[in-house]
Amino acid sequence: MIKHPSFTVEEWKIHETELNLDILAQTESVFALSNGHIGLRGNLDEGEPYGLPGTYLNSFYELRPLPYAEGGYGYPESGQAIVNVTNGKIIRLLVDDTPFDVRYGLLQSHERELDLRAGVLHRTVNWVSPTGRSIKVSSTRMVSFTQRAIAAISYEVEPIDSSVRIVLQSELVANEALPDAGKDPRAGTVSLSPLEGEEHEVRNTRGLLVHHTQASSLRMGAAMDHQIEGPKGMTIEAESTPDIARVSVSAQLRPGERLRIIKFLAYGWSSQRSRSAISDQIIAALSAARSTGWEGLLAEQRGFLNDFWKSSNIEIEGDAEVQQALRFALFHVLQAGCRGEQRPIPAKGLTGPGYDGHTFWDTEICVLPALILTLPRAAADVLRWRHSTLHLAKERARQLGLRGAAFPWRTIHGEASSSYWPAGTAAFHINADIAYAVTHYIESTEDRAFEKEIGLELLVETARLWRSLGFLNVNGEFRIDGVTGPDEYSALVDNNVYTNLMAQHNLRSAAEAAKRHPHVARALGVHAGEIASWSEAAEKMFIPYDKSLNVTPQDDAFTSHEVWNFADTKTDHYPLLLYFPYFDLYRKQVVKQADLVLAMHLRGDAFTAEQKARNFAYYEPLTVRDSSLSASTQAVIAAEVGQLQLAYDYLAEVAFMDLYDLEHNTRDGLHIASLVGTWSALVAGFGGMRLYGGSLAFAPRLPESVARLAFRILFRNRCIYIEVTATDVRYSLIEGSPLAIWHHGDKLALSTNEAVIRPIPRIKVGPRPTQPPGRAPVERAAQSYSCKTTEQPHHSVHLRP
Amino acid sequence: MIKHPSFTVEEWKIHETELNLDILAQTESVFALSNGHIGLRGNLDEGEPYGLPGTYLNSFYELRPLPYAEGGYGYPESGQAIVNVTNGKIIRLLVDDTPFDVRYGLLQSHERELDLRAGVLHRTVNWVSPTGRSIKVSSTRMVSFTQRAIAAISYEVEPIDSSVRIVLQSELVANEALPDAGKDPRAGTVSLSPLEGEEHEVRNTRGLLVHHTQASSLRMGAAMDHQIEGPKGMTIEAESTPDIARVSVSAQLRPGERLRIIKFLAYGWSSQRSRSAISDQIIAALSAARSTGWEGLLAEQRGFLNDFWKSSNIEIEGDAEVQQALRFALFHVLQAGCRGEQRPIPAKGLTGPGYDGHTFWDTEICVLPALILTLPRAAADVLRWRHSTLHLAKERARQLGLRGAAFPWRTIHGEASSSYWPAGTAAFHINADIAYAVTHYIESTEDRAFEKEIGLELLVETARLWRSLGFLNVNGEFRIDGVTGPDEYSALVDNNVYTNLMAQHNLRSAAEAAKRHPHVARALGVHAGEIASWSEAAEKMFIPYDKSLNVTPQDDAFTSHEVWNFADTKTDHYPLLLYFPYFDLYRKQVVKQADLVLAMHLRGDAFTAEQKARNFAYYEPLTVRDSSLSASTQAVIAAEVGQLQLAYDYLAEVAFMDLYDLEHNTRDGLHIASLVGTWSALVAGFGGMRLYGGSLAFAPRLPESVARLAFRILFRNRCIYIEVTATDVRYSLIEGSPLAIWHHGDKLALSTNEAVIRPIPRIKVGPRPTQPPGRAPVERAAQSYSCKTTEQPHHSVHLRP
Repeated sequence: MIKHPSFTVEEWKIHETELNLDILAQTESVFALSNGHIGLRGNLDEGEPYGLPGTYLNSFYELRPLPYAEGGYGYPESGQAIVNVTNGKIIRLLVDDTPFDVRYGLLQSHERELDLRAGVLHRTVNWVSPTGRSIKVSSTRMVSFTQRAIAAISYEVEPIDSSVRIVLQSELVANEALPDAGKDPRAGTVSLSPLEGEEHEVRNTRGLLVHHTQASSLRMGAAMDHQIEGPKGMTIEAESTPDIARVSVSAQLRPGERLRIIKFLAYGWSSQRSRSAISDQIIAALSAARSTGWEGLLAEQRGFLNDFWKSSNIEIEGDAEVQQALRFALFHVLQAGCRGEQRPIPAKGLTGPGYDGHTFWDTEICVLPALILTLPRAAADVLRWRHSTLHLAKERARQLGLRGAAFPWRTIHGEASSSYWPAGTAAFHINADIAYAVTHYIESTEDRAFEKEIGLELLVETARLWRSLGFLNVNGEFRIDGVTGPDEYSALVDNNVYTNLMAQHNLRSAAEAAKRHPHVARALGVHAGEIASWSEAAEKMFIPYDKSLNVTPQDDAFTSHEVWNFADTKTDHYPLLLYFPYFDLYRKQVVKQADLVLAMHLRGDAFTAEQKARNFAYYEPLTVRDSSLSASTQAVIAAEVGQLQLAYDYLAEVAFMDLYDLEHNTRDGLHIASLVGTWSALVAGFGGMRLYGGSLAFAPRLPESVARLAFRILFRNRCIYIEVTATDVRYSLIEGSPLAIWHHGDKLALSTNEAVIRPIPRIKVGPRPTQPPGRAPVERAAQSYSCKTTEQPHHSVHLRP
Repeated sequence: MIKHPSFTVEEWKIHETELNLDILAQTESVFALSNGHIGLRGNLDEGEPYGLPGTYLNSFYELRPLPYAEGGYGYPESGQAIVNVTNGKIIRLLVDDTPFDVRYGLLQSHERELDLRAGVLHRTVNWVSPTGRSIKVSSTRMVSFTQRAIAAISYEVEPIDSSVRIVLQSELVANEALPDAGKDPRAGTVSLSPLEGEEHEVRNTRGLLVHHTQASSLRMGAAMDHQIEGPKGMTIEAESTPDIARVSVSAQLRPGERLRIIKFLAYGWSSQRSRSAISDQIIAALSAARSTGWEGLLAEQRGFLNDFWKSSNIEIEGDAEVQQALRFALFHVLQAGCRGEQRPIPAKGLTGPGYDGHTFWDTEICVLPALILTLPRAAADVLRWRHSTLHLAKERARQLGLRGAAFPWRTIHGEASSSYWPAGTAAFHINADIAYAVTHYIESTEDRAFEKEIGLELLVETARLWRSLGFLNVNGEFRIDGVTGPDEYSALVDNNVYTNLMAQHNLRSAAEAAKRHPHVARALGVHAGEIASWSEAAEKMFIPYDKSLNVTPQDDAFTSHEVWNFADTKTDHYPLLLYFPYFDLYRKQVVKQADLVLAMHLRGDAFTAEQKARNFAYYEPLTVRDSSLSASTQAVIAAEVGQLQLAYDYLAEVAFMDLYDLEHNTRDGLHIASLVGTWSALVAGFGGMRLYGGSLAFAPRLPESVARLAFRILFRNRCIYIEVTATDVRYSLIEGSPLAIWHHGDKLALSTNEAVIRPIPRIKVGPRPTQPPGRAPVERAAQSYSCKTTEQPHHSVHLRP
């Protein structure tokens, strides 16, 4: 059953059965392999053709000046951009006199398969060269989850019907030429030849290159070694220049004979370590990998994934496409987060150069909730990374005239790197978002060591920021003016409700944590008066309310603004930011992405059920979803207010975001936060899972076409298994001591003795909210996704209709 | 009586008695000569040392790309910057083997004198060369008001005590090296070698260079010719290269002998005309000037100024310093505006490269009110220039999704050139400002031809903008959200009162004018329904009011914001924009420049006297005057509410802005709008002159230390003379038919038969309003100005203490 133009629907695989060069860049992102430490885009082995070549190392970036035609105090002067580092994926093939290049000759068959349980990318090609030689090429590529510095490739070629002379050139290539990034502000910037050579060497089948960046002064090394199996008479040569290391194998192959190379790749990088230390480090990593061997690496990989799927698998019955997309999503979230180890998770993971490789607030707000409950160690590592940049955030706060810490809106290394100030500097909510993740992690794990060592200081410094950013007015209201909330089609608003509610949570959490750990707090300079001032600010936090409309305004003035003229906005003029000036978006009621609706998810305790339904109905017709972060939140709240089919439609949009390239920029990398949104839409949406004040609550409810939803979470050293059907829910404690949870408002006691089954109560539901014309999600009815791309012909690269 | 460190106090002169190289750049601005068509900074004749060399031609600019680290729809991609063109001022002097350079040898005496009645700059120097030769150099420089393409210099040198060999090199020099502009955003940008040579020629004593700019494709020519008087044996040579034309005179001079050069300079430029047409044009201009001769040019210049002073002179008894500064100011306003002839008046006139030579809203709001009543033809020319850019403003409105015309916040040629969007694109009030000046001009001149040909279309297209920018809400209020008002320490606010009141005036004026000229209106596509929609929007214009504070808020949210922490702001941290981030200034109650207070001046009819006093008392403690545009408006309203000493203090600040370099950027050019503010502070402030709905009203009142104020204005082909003393006012109609005017609310009939004398009524005055700490104007008591520069050591160049 092939429903997708490029990919078949399979339970545990993404399977491509033909090669479409128009969407090559998108498939390079889809087939990217990573372990959070190193990342290889799914470029073809032979290097060309490519959509966008990409090899990335977490936090390996170059600085670039941020230009301003008219500057201002406190504007970041220097940006950071992820570097496309030495490409070790390349294995070129010469068939007689002709290079293997799918653009020439005849491509008889092409298959690529991302195996989500094996953790490898397979490729099989049958090709006839322009001079009539038939060959078969098979390759398998992996980035090891267990040996984080290591990637490996098995590559084999065999002639089909006649004897051919084969030359394989396995390479390391630095400073590849890159295509122009175009004008879309969401794409990354390109630096020509960012790497300066320091060392190059080949010895037998091993090659090594060491480079450094010019401005950021980071050093990196890439090394390769090979196991080669081929016919008698095969010859091997090696050579190197500063930017290329090459091992060439030449052999005459008769039909039935094969030439096979196992290529082991190692990467190492540092801002501190010397050239020889880096060289030694990668040579050592190579030795370990060779000693494990190709089969050993495959076995480790499968074992690692077995463990992951055991605790993280979600089953959804009745929608094979969503099931596949969900597993694809979880696999990529795992790839982005599992071995980052105190480095950030970029918005695109390590799958592409989009957003310059930066990390934003969505790491904490979108990605961490899933990691906390499936891979809590990885979640802690991300927060440890934030903590490691605290000195920079404190310095930034000082520069801005504020106390505490002001974390950057976007960054790789911790410095503020946003050149667009209304969305950047003023988007202070990121500080409360980090604090929220800290609290969420601690409540879900009871990791007190983390709380004392990392968490408390993050809470304290962010609380200090809020206390100095807001002020108590004469009416005793604590106001936070002039900030940018999540919705980037508003800016510099007063009392953004999301920001104020999250700041309130931040201030409260800091006060509570400081009281729990008085000694640590005192070491951070916290005194009783300061704690009291946080509590007072939290208590008096001003939350505007529009009594005439009976809804919560996104900010003080939002509901008094003119509603965007949706009727006269052409459907191909989205995303609006590419067709309308910001000043006009800012002054009207139009929402780029869930803002007040996100507040209702994360701070649902601050709204009644009736308010949630009314607010959701108000904001849906204003929300254009020009951000990939929006639909999953809309799915969660739609489910909560009982709009289950709408939630399901949003779920599908989230699930297919990258597989269908719905935002037209999958070429620049996958949307990690959107991928993880599939998990959120199911677990927080249809599962109704919330964690407020340490209490774990569920309120499951399924849309008609989903027969069954089952998922697992790790919570306070327990494993809980939840199975939902149309009528009832079964809660099982798989592992761990007894625990109280909530089901649709009722308290339940869970133990490993037996599962608890509860019926799903009915809910009164209003009419289905509408969206702006042309912006409703595609209805998920016939179990096939009418790809929206065909309606929106304004971007450069498209999926085939 | 020398009170000023550099300048003596004289009635009709600015007289410098010593040379201070630290303030050379400032004095180059002060001594700049211009006729609005061409401008020469007061650089020393010999070219070096210089602060900032400058020769400018109105609207002769180069394009520069505006860089954005992160771009957005509708951002201007290209900026415009005034070009330092071919320098024709240079006359180098060699004394025996040593170049005359005041940095070497001994400067025995130095005097420069700007003669405000003769319209020339004199210089006299006695210098002893490093090798012991004494000489005297005298020069006189002029830019002709009567022959707008012409400047001329008389230069003579004589030995004092021994015979010397003299070489004079009179030059045209293109592509001079310029000093770096530094980081102050208010300074201009520097382009290296902006001019490409097209033609160079010397013939006898005449030299000529023609160049063009690369990106803006403008062509310019400069030509010089000479009359040379010297001793027998004098030799003359001439040569040229693409960037230099040079005429050299060599002579042996004995004591008592002199060498004198009269240098005639002509400039011409065009975006259309050919190289040969430009050459011919400037050669012809030179011929005319030579035929007039040096003495003839001097006589014409004096005659022109006689006429000007006859209609524009203001006398203020009791303050010789202010009297001098006022005349200096009026002279420079004349220089900036008198021969622009349908070209713009830049913020700096043609005195320096500040603000890239751009024109802003202050041309219409600050400069035109004075020009309309003293040089109405020049005022009409400025509005004709605006009208000539209307097609660009309409195109910009279309790009922004608006109707009508959106004039640029800053420009030279008419295209939007502001890269800083909150202060730029959103500062829509400039459109109402232009419309205000149109109405003001028509009401003051009854120039119906102008109204039909120029005025109506400007009113119609700006009214259309407002109608599409604002909206009628459900409560029947016409709101204008998300704009930037005059106060640049607020941005993107809702219902800025200044903007809304000015838009109201714009809409009403357009409706009235369209009704007056139905045929012309119909040709512009105006129908009755559209006129009605303007009137409705004007009538329902929303003007916020803060009932709890009982003041008019600057915008919807202003008075709900936190007040800026003035107490903890160091006095050397002004202007705040250089020390604090914009986002923080934006979200607090701190005012860069009069905003609501300016609304109370221009739309005083919309406020009661009591409201004015209360509002003024509210905004004074919040207004830091980080803009040179502010103090004159504060003077006007201070005078209106009876705070006469405060008004006088502000008047002094305005008057001395450039003579004392109070803003620390006089080096980049004079503040034309601030200079003209001296006129406003006297005429609209102490004279209380207003023009509302065509009625000319006065409400004079003097501060204690001013014994008498007398001024003239031209109004509807009449000349009115107003003399104010402490107790009464004498109104005389010097010329023209009878006219009704208002005196402190009473109607008076004026005719040429006899003057009308009226007493000045008493006014009830509240306590003197306070200003932020350290930001009060210097008290004008002892008739000497304690220069503020000594307290603010944070800028690079200072006046000597």
